[in-house]
Amino acid sequence: MKRQYCVGMDLGGTNVRLGIVDSRGQVLRRRRVKMARFVSKAELSDWLGMILGEFISANRDFPPPKAAVVGFAGPTRSSAGTVYYAPNVGRFTHIDVGRRLERALGLPVVVENDANCAALGEFWRGRGRGAKSLFLFTLGTGIGGSFVIDGDVWRGEDGIAGEIGHTVVMAGGPRCSCGKSGCLEALVSATAIVRDYREATRGRAVAASAGGAAGALTAKAVVDLAREGDRAARAVVRRASWALGIGIANVFHLLNPEVILIGGGVSRAGSFLIRPAVEEARRLVFPPLRARVKVKRTALGDDAGILGAAYLGFRP
Amino acid sequence: MKRQYCVGMDLGGTNVRLGIVDSRGQVLRRRRVKMARFVSKAELSDWLGMILGEFISANRDFPPPKAAVVGFAGPTRSSAGTVYYAPNVGRFTHIDVGRRLERALGLPVVVENDANCAALGEFWRGRGRGAKSLFLFTLGTGIGGSFVIDGDVWRGEDGIAGEIGHTVVMAGGPRCSCGKSGCLEALVSATAIVRDYREATRGRAVAASAGGAAGALTAKAVVDLAREGDRAARAVVRRASWALGIGIANVFHLLNPEVILIGGGVSRAGSFLIRPAVEEARRLVFPPLRARVKVKRTALGDDAGILGAAYLGFRP
Repeated sequence: MKRQYCVGMDLGGTNVRLGIVDSRGQVLRRRRVKMARFVSKAELSDWLGMILGEFISANRDFPPPKAAVVGFAGPTRSSAGTVYYAPNVGRFTHIDVGRRLERALGLPVVVENDANCAALGEFWRGRGRGAKSLFLFTLGTGIGGSFVIDGDVWRGEDGIAGEIGHTVVMAGGPRCSCGKSGCLEALVSATAIVRDYREATRGRAVAASAGGAAGALTAKAVVDLAREGDRAARAVVRRASWALGIGIANVFHLLNPEVILIGGGVSRAGSFLIRPAVEEARRLVFPPLRARVKVKRTALGDDAGILGAAYLGFRP
Repeated sequence: MKRQYCVGMDLGGTNVRLGIVDSRGQVLRRRRVKMARFVSKAELSDWLGMILGEFISANRDFPPPKAAVVGFAGPTRSSAGTVYYAPNVGRFTHIDVGRRLERALGLPVVVENDANCAALGEFWRGRGRGAKSLFLFTLGTGIGGSFVIDGDVWRGEDGIAGEIGHTVVMAGGPRCSCGKSGCLEALVSATAIVRDYREATRGRAVAASAGGAAGALTAKAVVDLAREGDRAARAVVRRASWALGIGIANVFHLLNPEVILIGGGVSRAGSFLIRPAVEEARRLVFPPLRARVKVKRTALGDDAGILGAAYLGFRP
């Protein structure tokens, strides 16, 4: 049997990652490109077509890919090849990029939400292997989510299911980028952690490692400070853990997945943030079910999105 | 082809409802019994066996039922025939009632969560007919929920999925019967509406129609008072609507079902409570998807639970 290949592409806030993936789930080639911003949908799809075309050309030692699959950080209607909107790439909505790319590249193109890709990657080759159902939280600049049943994403009627970041867990709480108050994303994302630490230390000298008063503060720096004993940072991380615990318990009560995965840049802050969140989640679920809350960190890092994208390309 | 029958049973907080249902979804006989409380699991299953046995005997003009299905107001592991706990019936946990009843009655017995039964009833014969996916909120003394995909309940790994009432939407908010703070049930249930109105009117004369200071106050009475212009009642109902709107938006973002159904006693308070909740939900969802939030009131009233229970009995 001839080996087959797909191209997986993951459009992050800062970097675009591409990979050539075989049908056994091995990433055989990788490329990383700086993400750009676009003023029109045409400009975006021209750019994507160019990057994908170059990548495929540069890897002509492989047979032509079966499909190219692109993960967007935004709600997506995969079945129609459209993205509702994706703040990372520009301010426009209803981006009908799938068909444009198919015409430009002459091969099947699938668009999908990036958290859905990451969840499928973990199901295929990572910590979700063999799970009948899993829910993935991606903790980054924003918070994404994806619910996978029997190896297939539950997308819902309009393709947007899984948006845990924009579920409200603290009505009346801090303002979210989406305009609502008290979304999980407004409490646990990197953006929220940085904002909370800035507010807590307003007008005070902050540690040089936190970027001082300059714009360089990151969520990782805040978690590092908390680990070193900085009181303001500890309070901020404690609240983020608490809110994440609520998010985990909500997913458990509503979906009761076999496993809950935590991935994304903020999850690399590690057990200092995640462990108290899992303890809080256990405290919040029905007592007879506490031992049933199974939370794992993702295993594939940046490859998850590429792998999951390719996984979709291999499925008819 | 021989017509087949199932017995559906719905264990409510006040009443137990039984029905003989045919395979086309018609309720041919009904019975209502006052609910009792029990001090042991054995006492509970003896009583259920007696009630079911009497009902089947009294309807011996029908052929023997294919199965009896019992809906409990509590998290249930239907696949194992056990109920984790059900405050309505007693304080014990891990109620292995399915097999006991099978032995006592000599026919297949299924136990299921009552909201799951109601959702399947609405899918089969009510407002969910033909929906690829639906989510049901049952607003009563407590709040239940059920997620139905392709005519089958999504039960999750432990059988407890759908528990929207115990998802937290207002972290730090009012205390719930489950011990947590800010659960949807602590904000929208009949219990919450009555509690909030009592607190708002503490030490004040309240309208006679609200039961005065006596214990007779009901959620319906509070909604009626709000409709008549009572300011405290209006504020209480407004908050309940707001919280229900958040719950609806959370379900939309996380599950994106084709249709969201609202049922249960509190939903009969009607459009005064439900309409502002739907407006709030639309305001909270991603703007390009606002028109996609489809919320309907249930159609089957008290029959939903019996019908959905029977539906499960007909499925192999």
